[in-house]
Amino acid sequence: MSRLREKALEMHRTHQGKLETVSKVAVRNAEDLSLAYSPGVAEPCKVIYEDQSKVYDYTVKGNMVAVVTDGTAVLGLGNIGPEAAMPVMEGKALLFKSFAGVDAFPICLNTQDVDKIVETVKLLEPTFGGINLEDIAAPNCFEVEERLKKELNIPVFHDDQHGTAIVTVAGLVNALKLANKKMSEIKVVASGAGAAGIAIIKLLYSYGVRDIIMCDSKGTVYEGRPVGMNPVKNEVAKYTNRDKVAGTLADALAGADVFVGVSVEGALTQEMVRSMNENPIIFAMANPNPEIMPEEAKAAGALVVGTGRSDFPNQVNNVLAFPGIFRGALDVRATHINEEMKVAAVQAIAELISEDELHPDYIIPAPFDSRVAPKVAAYVAKAAMETGVARVKVDPNEIAEKTKRLAIIE
Amino acid sequence: MSRLREKALEMHRTHQGKLETVSKVAVRNAEDLSLAYSPGVAEPCKVIYEDQSKVYDYTVKGNMVAVVTDGTAVLGLGNIGPEAAMPVMEGKALLFKSFAGVDAFPICLNTQDVDKIVETVKLLEPTFGGINLEDIAAPNCFEVEERLKKELNIPVFHDDQHGTAIVTVAGLVNALKLANKKMSEIKVVASGAGAAGIAIIKLLYSYGVRDIIMCDSKGTVYEGRPVGMNPVKNEVAKYTNRDKVAGTLADALAGADVFVGVSVEGALTQEMVRSMNENPIIFAMANPNPEIMPEEAKAAGALVVGTGRSDFPNQVNNVLAFPGIFRGALDVRATHINEEMKVAAVQAIAELISEDELHPDYIIPAPFDSRVAPKVAAYVAKAAMETGVARVKVDPNEIAEKTKRLAIIE
Repeated sequence: MSRLREKALEMHRTHQGKLETVSKVAVRNAEDLSLAYSPGVAEPCKVIYEDQSKVYDYTVKGNMVAVVTDGTAVLGLGNIGPEAAMPVMEGKALLFKSFAGVDAFPICLNTQDVDKIVETVKLLEPTFGGINLEDIAAPNCFEVEERLKKELNIPVFHDDQHGTAIVTVAGLVNALKLANKKMSEIKVVASGAGAAGIAIIKLLYSYGVRDIIMCDSKGTVYEGRPVGMNPVKNEVAKYTNRDKVAGTLADALAGADVFVGVSVEGALTQEMVRSMNENPIIFAMANPNPEIMPEEAKAAGALVVGTGRSDFPNQVNNVLAFPGIFRGALDVRATHINEEMKVAAVQAIAELISEDELHPDYIIPAPFDSRVAPKVAAYVAKAAMETGVARVKVDPNEIAEKTKRLAIIE
Repeated sequence: MSRLREKALEMHRTHQGKLETVSKVAVRNAEDLSLAYSPGVAEPCKVIYEDQSKVYDYTVKGNMVAVVTDGTAVLGLGNIGPEAAMPVMEGKALLFKSFAGVDAFPICLNTQDVDKIVETVKLLEPTFGGINLEDIAAPNCFEVEERLKKELNIPVFHDDQHGTAIVTVAGLVNALKLANKKMSEIKVVASGAGAAGIAIIKLLYSYGVRDIIMCDSKGTVYEGRPVGMNPVKNEVAKYTNRDKVAGTLADALAGADVFVGVSVEGALTQEMVRSMNENPIIFAMANPNPEIMPEEAKAAGALVVGTGRSDFPNQVNNVLAFPGIFRGALDVRATHINEEMKVAAVQAIAELISEDELHPDYIIPAPFDSRVAPKVAAYVAKAAMETGVARVKVDPNEIAEKTKRLAIIE
């Protein structure tokens, strides 16, 4: 048994999981009980009954996120089911708390049926201020998110899609400065049509990128392709690959500026990198091993390489995004997390690296950079207020300060 | 604004609710992260995927109870909805933690439909080791509990029914010692056919009481009564009031040994008490004001009076039961909370008052008596093991010690 395996198992077993529910107030004697429970507790109940919005003032709802999964796409392990997904969801919950003081709770659902997932989360809405969808396989994840966004009045965010997209695009914003290129001029080729791939393409489009080709295991995706299409790919095909280039990933990459990989180990070769435009930018984020190893990509001429791994530079780690995004959204009681809030998160992450610091091996802040969540939270809150999805107004600086105060990372 | 109201509102507002989710392990740096989250977290996931029972070893499931409500019968406030119910469910969750170290989480459902409540809780099962139903109105609460008990493999317990019943019967066990009467010989008249009333009658029957009459707003309940019956009352009528006495509560009470009130203020008069058998035992548990005030009952000849209130002797408080019951059930990974486990809880609570201490004003331990939860947990665990609903064997003394260690009451 490897050392990591042994230590991880021991840690989970020793504590019987990682999360606990704790009282913020004392309940040690009869007087405490009369305030926190009967009869005093009737008072906030009555206030909320009169004005439902007060649930944010008197309960945990406004700081509580559900980490919801059906266990169908857990890490790289696949469809392992809701029980086996628990350790990941607990872990995610504690990242919310450690990085941004957001309370979070694992909700592992014993169904893989879209209707049932949507219905269940809807019925859970009163308890939660936000919903973080996690490790739900494509294409179900798209429908679940889309329907919940329409039907709930609290933010719904599928982190595997949007968290990855936000951090990738933040890295690209900085990488383009090094390459001296503009979003509106670049050609991006994406490998992988799963949750993350689709979300990255959508966010790039929001960012003004117009020349995008998505590839899946059948090659380039284009409108009317006779095989391997689905509603989500059809949607993407409407605004990407406008010349309907048919062919392989290698065909698509010729002359491209950026490669975005969320596919499989080895998908990108040095030859393909060499066929790209000058100063190629590579995001090779397959797990656990990237589409191409950074040193190989560099040797073939890549200017910048990002991966999902902590042992290489430029780690694309969702923890840079989701804690601050929910912190900001919760603090202004946002009803949704919209495109403008995602773009704000990208800006916050990208701006943390100054022109002076910017370097091919430092385009993305480190996961434990304590400046990240406060800045993301402030930017996201501001964007929410500016776009009319915030229910209350709060000074973004206050939100940044609060986030700093609540975070418990080193 | 009253002082209590003011203090209760301030406390809830200051902390934005009462509950928080906290990490049991540090997540302060990259090494912590590699164990609690990616990549180390994959190891417990894989172990659970291979053997689902390991979810109890490696996750919070085995110590986590859902406090589930639809908000239809909250305290004395009635059908105030799931948002307004949140303060009570949070409060309940922290009582679980304070009294017995059980983690608990509020689940306030946005539906009052029995099918949807049952379906939702079923889908939530992977996360939880037990389900505490709370403040769900009769008669829905009976069907919800019945169906969930059949369909889930974790304990389901409707505290408003069984918690109240267990503490009441524990009090009665001791009161009968003072009255020198036996369960098998007494006549009990219950006023109120709601969740608690029905459960008390069932538990009394388990305890060998055979002469029981239940009364509701229409008078005595009997098989074939032409008005105001429902399936639950029909069921009760099969084993109570065998002589089919028709009449009022006053009619029923003539010659009775015990009055059990879970109805409304003023339902019991001194005249009725005087019509009872010698040494009448009165449980007047209407909230916030009892069916008869203790001093009036005493003046009319009552030997013992219990109420729901903390400002009178003999408070029937559910907190004496549910924390220890779930502690015991969880620690042996019980699949159900059966009748024998409830009887064991009654015994544990009753036995805590020695023959020497026993007094008409001390038949029930005080809510903050720290001996209660450990003893209840040990007895319940033992009963679970003896009746075959425990999935693991644990020494009951160990469970008592653990409960003592985890409790954080004064």
